[in-house]
Amino acid sequence: MTAPRYDVIAIGNAIVDVMAAASDELIEELGMAKGGMTLIDEDGARDLYAAMGPAREISGGSAANTLAGLSALGAQCAFVGQVADDQLGAVFAHDIRAVGIDFDTAPRAGEPSTARCLIFVTPDGQRTMNTFLGASQFLPAAALDEDAVSGAGILYLEGYLWDPEEPRAAMRSAIAAARAAGRKVAFTLSDGFVIARHGDDFRALIADGQIDILFANEAELAALTGEDDFETGLASLEGQVETLVVTRSDKGAVAMRGGERAEVAAEPIAKVIDTTGAGDLFAAGFLFGTIREEALAVCLRRGAIAAAEIISHYGARPEADLQALMAERLEG
Amino acid sequence: MTAPRYDVIAIGNAIVDVMAAASDELIEELGMAKGGMTLIDEDGARDLYAAMGPAREISGGSAANTLAGLSALGAQCAFVGQVADDQLGAVFAHDIRAVGIDFDTAPRAGEPSTARCLIFVTPDGQRTMNTFLGASQFLPAAALDEDAVSGAGILYLEGYLWDPEEPRAAMRSAIAAARAAGRKVAFTLSDGFVIARHGDDFRALIADGQIDILFANEAELAALTGEDDFETGLASLEGQVETLVVTRSDKGAVAMRGGERAEVAAEPIAKVIDTTGAGDLFAAGFLFGTIREEALAVCLRRGAIAAAEIISHYGARPEADLQALMAERLEG
Repeated sequence: MTAPRYDVIAIGNAIVDVMAAASDELIEELGMAKGGMTLIDEDGARDLYAAMGPAREISGGSAANTLAGLSALGAQCAFVGQVADDQLGAVFAHDIRAVGIDFDTAPRAGEPSTARCLIFVTPDGQRTMNTFLGASQFLPAAALDEDAVSGAGILYLEGYLWDPEEPRAAMRSAIAAARAAGRKVAFTLSDGFVIARHGDDFRALIADGQIDILFANEAELAALTGEDDFETGLASLEGQVETLVVTRSDKGAVAMRGGERAEVAAEPIAKVIDTTGAGDLFAAGFLFGTIREEALAVCLRRGAIAAAEIISHYGARPEADLQALMAERLEG
Repeated sequence: MTAPRYDVIAIGNAIVDVMAAASDELIEELGMAKGGMTLIDEDGARDLYAAMGPAREISGGSAANTLAGLSALGAQCAFVGQVADDQLGAVFAHDIRAVGIDFDTAPRAGEPSTARCLIFVTPDGQRTMNTFLGASQFLPAAALDEDAVSGAGILYLEGYLWDPEEPRAAMRSAIAAARAAGRKVAFTLSDGFVIARHGDDFRALIADGQIDILFANEAELAALTGEDDFETGLASLEGQVETLVVTRSDKGAVAMRGGERAEVAAEPIAKVIDTTGAGDLFAAGFLFGTIREEALAVCLRRGAIAAAEIISHYGARPEADLQALMAERLEG
């Protein structure tokens, strides 16, 4: 096994977030499930955009956000995801390359356009997401460079991308390539509705020992395991994944690795502005600690610090100097 | 003279701002004049974008920013400006309509694309702008609805748009229509380099009594009048414009109207994040007071409060509830 060329290679949706402040009344009026993620088509995106307040565009995508955090911390990363050959595709490509991530997936010509996630942020900082997957769902299996996957320490996959057929096939090939090369496979469950649609696939992958590091939040853990009780849910996955990380919003997070268990409190912050990307950046911090073979509790702390940074401003890409922030907080 | 349909109608560049944090070293390395605005072509925009950090896209354009502030305060506004038929054009149109501004200029098919302003924001909050005017400079005189201009209380024009020929012709027609209808014409000088190119035009308009309300900053006042001394510069315009407003960054602002003179201190803020749009929002606050026929000192205070809001966050469009902010500050 040669030394990995990348610390982490990720496959995920290539999405530009379109974010606007919204009242709780608007969320209700538009019939949206507050805090959730709903898939919409291009017409739906047009209608919903028209109902949205003035917005800002910031690159997003769950796994891409995680890589942006990892890259800011100093990890070597590559991203695989599909944009269209349009202005928002150019924005996504610019933003991910600008933080030092290799991104070589060629833009796709013609319709549909680059994926957008219309995000309504309520005064409590919660985000309600409506995603038009556009070009992102047409990531072909051929876009995958198996050598790059075999040469990366960790393969990171987002559950959101399990819906469309081609990217799902690409992710299955990537898992096989990573495992054959003795690399780690990390997976984030992404969303309760994704689990409702693909829970059987996810449970089979886990039972087969295909997933080394699994990220979930409390609701996703319950949806995956069918256990409403948190501890019972945790226990039901014991021994099936090497590392399990469950985030619990303001209650912090829990991780289990081998026989070990660790917990972390949520990092205190002055004011929650926008929770978009909290889970993505938690994963970034945790994986960075994992790459450095740090203690489980330190990996969790890194996750909590990165998540706290991201929810203190609009957008799911880090703004502060994460390296400096971690150095300061981990010493303190 | 019938009651105006709009409080303010503006003609300006239709631009999406592309904003990224940047170090002073990068500004120097790229040979940019810190704090200034430089026009670039599409190739220049591509090269500079590649050198830029991860960015966010927020609608901008000087006069459009001013209208966004006016609209947030409750004024009825219409905007005239040219976008291309592309994704960034749709972003601009959405954002301006989402705040309740009428915007009926049809998007322009084909090249060039919608205007972008690449803005490098240094740690001191200063912005250095590089503008690719794209479709914006092809605003045809035919896009102007003279009835709408005649039916608006104030016509507001940005000096930035004096460069390209067609929009300049549109603005000259608009001035004639507004004056014929007995409306007020407000003009912002925008930039020292614009004055270097078109100072003779501006001085002629002013000497002819075509401008009722003139906005400038200190450097622009000096460039326009040729007077380095601030007071001498002010005095040289006395009697030529009904209202003169000169902003002085952290030293506040001065206004003269008829024989009256008033000054305001800069509104204190916790931290300057990004000065983009400070002048635009000062104009918004001042014009809102003007519409309501408030005392000169109150108009200035409104300008200072709106400017303070805009420099406390990234982007040149208001985020806070400006009406509530003004109610609170003006009472205090």
